[in-house]
Amino acid sequence: MMKVSHTKVSEIGEFGLIKLISEILEIRESPLLLGIGDDAAAWHTKGGEIELATTDALVENVHFSLKTISWEDLGWKGLAVNLSDIAAMGGTPKYALVSLCLPPETEVENVVELYKEMASLAQEYNLAVVGGNVTSAPLVALSITVVGETEKGKLLTRSAALPGDKIAVTGYLGASAAGLKMLTEKLEFEAEETSILKEAHFRPCPRIAEGKILVEQGIQTAIDLSDGLLSDLDKICQASKVGAKIEADKIPIHPAVKKHFGEKALELALSGGEDYELLFTGKSEILDKVKNFLPTPATVIGEITDDSGKVVVLDEDGKPIEFRREGWEHFTYLSQP
Amino acid sequence: MMKVSHTKVSEIGEFGLIKLISEILEIRESPLLLGIGDDAAAWHTKGGEIELATTDALVENVHFSLKTISWEDLGWKGLAVNLSDIAAMGGTPKYALVSLCLPPETEVENVVELYKEMASLAQEYNLAVVGGNVTSAPLVALSITVVGETEKGKLLTRSAALPGDKIAVTGYLGASAAGLKMLTEKLEFEAEETSILKEAHFRPCPRIAEGKILVEQGIQTAIDLSDGLLSDLDKICQASKVGAKIEADKIPIHPAVKKHFGEKALELALSGGEDYELLFTGKSEILDKVKNFLPTPATVIGEITDDSGKVVVLDEDGKPIEFRREGWEHFTYLSQP
Repeated sequence: MMKVSHTKVSEIGEFGLIKLISEILEIRESPLLLGIGDDAAAWHTKGGEIELATTDALVENVHFSLKTISWEDLGWKGLAVNLSDIAAMGGTPKYALVSLCLPPETEVENVVELYKEMASLAQEYNLAVVGGNVTSAPLVALSITVVGETEKGKLLTRSAALPGDKIAVTGYLGASAAGLKMLTEKLEFEAEETSILKEAHFRPCPRIAEGKILVEQGIQTAIDLSDGLLSDLDKICQASKVGAKIEADKIPIHPAVKKHFGEKALELALSGGEDYELLFTGKSEILDKVKNFLPTPATVIGEITDDSGKVVVLDEDGKPIEFRREGWEHFTYLSQP
Repeated sequence: MMKVSHTKVSEIGEFGLIKLISEILEIRESPLLLGIGDDAAAWHTKGGEIELATTDALVENVHFSLKTISWEDLGWKGLAVNLSDIAAMGGTPKYALVSLCLPPETEVENVVELYKEMASLAQEYNLAVVGGNVTSAPLVALSITVVGETEKGKLLTRSAALPGDKIAVTGYLGASAAGLKMLTEKLEFEAEETSILKEAHFRPCPRIAEGKILVEQGIQTAIDLSDGLLSDLDKICQASKVGAKIEADKIPIHPAVKKHFGEKALELALSGGEDYELLFTGKSEILDKVKNFLPTPATVIGEITDDSGKVVVLDEDGKPIEFRREGWEHFTYLSQP
């Protein structure tokens, strides 16, 4: 285990901490398939299926500000980001448990709005919110656990990418981070664009149907884009012990992001995070086939290489572009507007 | 649904909020057996067993103060209170997911201590910590979800108590609340007593083995004592549509509590909360038999009545004693010493 005396959490960051925790907890793996370190934990049930479980938290002034997000959207997003982890495993969500921290002075109406929206999203994805917990706290925090399932042998992981695999993503990238930037910097765009960018940031669509199609069509590697394309692709490379190259001009940047953020647009798409699209890899011929079945368009953006641990972004002339590789690091606070 | 305009969370309290949330979420129950409102949610798996899930959170300065609790004990207690909910269903815990909020300046060593203790408790109860999430926050909060199972038809609920049933509890009551009082009021006792009361407050023992024996021996009704005897018994009475009478002098108050808290001792045992013992009901002959099998001594303290919704405490002359019936209401903050 790494030496930790007199080290602060902010010094090793979220990923350093997760690595450390997984070292402590990796006591026994069976009958687990996967423990900590993928989008969700996965193990076999007695019935022979694979059960999945994931947990994610949204904390006030870290992941959201009540000055910009509505209570409805908070309910939506809190559940959606967890469903996205189930999607990244090729799974079907079954049920959710919700742990909610609230300041005592919170209006009950707001709590009702949050739960109604969460119930409506749960109904849309055919899962049940079966339990939970409410407690007082000086700030609002929402921690949700989702349990899901997949059929035997049907699982997307981070560790199955092979050199030569093509890399693809669903949907557009960069719109969520652009939406956050628009809100925090009080940028003003046309009504429709404003609405698209806000929606992208506050109401991500978990790609459950897409994940299931991917796994049925023989794709084995996927991750959901929560921390940013570069950061999340790096996780696949580390888990699969491979490298990757991305062609910058193939990245499906949202048109509204291109229009308003110019040179910054590529960075938002590469490192902005919270797009909650699926990134997946597979043989060229499988990807060509699978693209025809997906309800959300998918775009091939690059290729897995044998240059282990190295993720490069190439410009249109094939030259590497230098970028900060940091993801959405949760050990810094949102700046308060 | 109740009217909620301009009402604050603190006005309706934890239980009012839970009632409201369960009204919003009760969209569909099948294939659920139980949704929100028991110690854990329960439903049938395809394999025919019953799966259980529960979530509970510990928030700094609401449920604990870092001035008194160690990081080890926080890890223990965070997991133990969730295991206690599985025990109250007669279940076996299978796995846990941990969502941890930490201030960026937290020492990594402390996080290691917390997880090591949690891993050790998990190993003791043969469950796996399969996943989790860490995020920054201005305070420490620990939200844990535990999934467990029971065999088909073997389930303890809050809603099966019948008039004439005897009421019993495992272990001693009042020691956890007495421990908290000792710490916050800086009371000084002998070393051994200090250690017993601290242990009772910080390191509750989930009664998993006891819960399993109860359900195997035909007991159908149980709850774990988290909010306090009166409050938790009231939940059984409400769910079962019955009443209850308790004989004050039969309540197994911990000797150290009796010795140091005099008249207050009974109140601590009735309303102090956080004992995490099991309260269960059943026919006299089943209780007499089951007591012989339990690793923790159980004491009969009263009887279920047909006086629906009414919980009375009788003194040694059979006269009702008046008490505040409030439980461990989580919408107030701990007073900062």
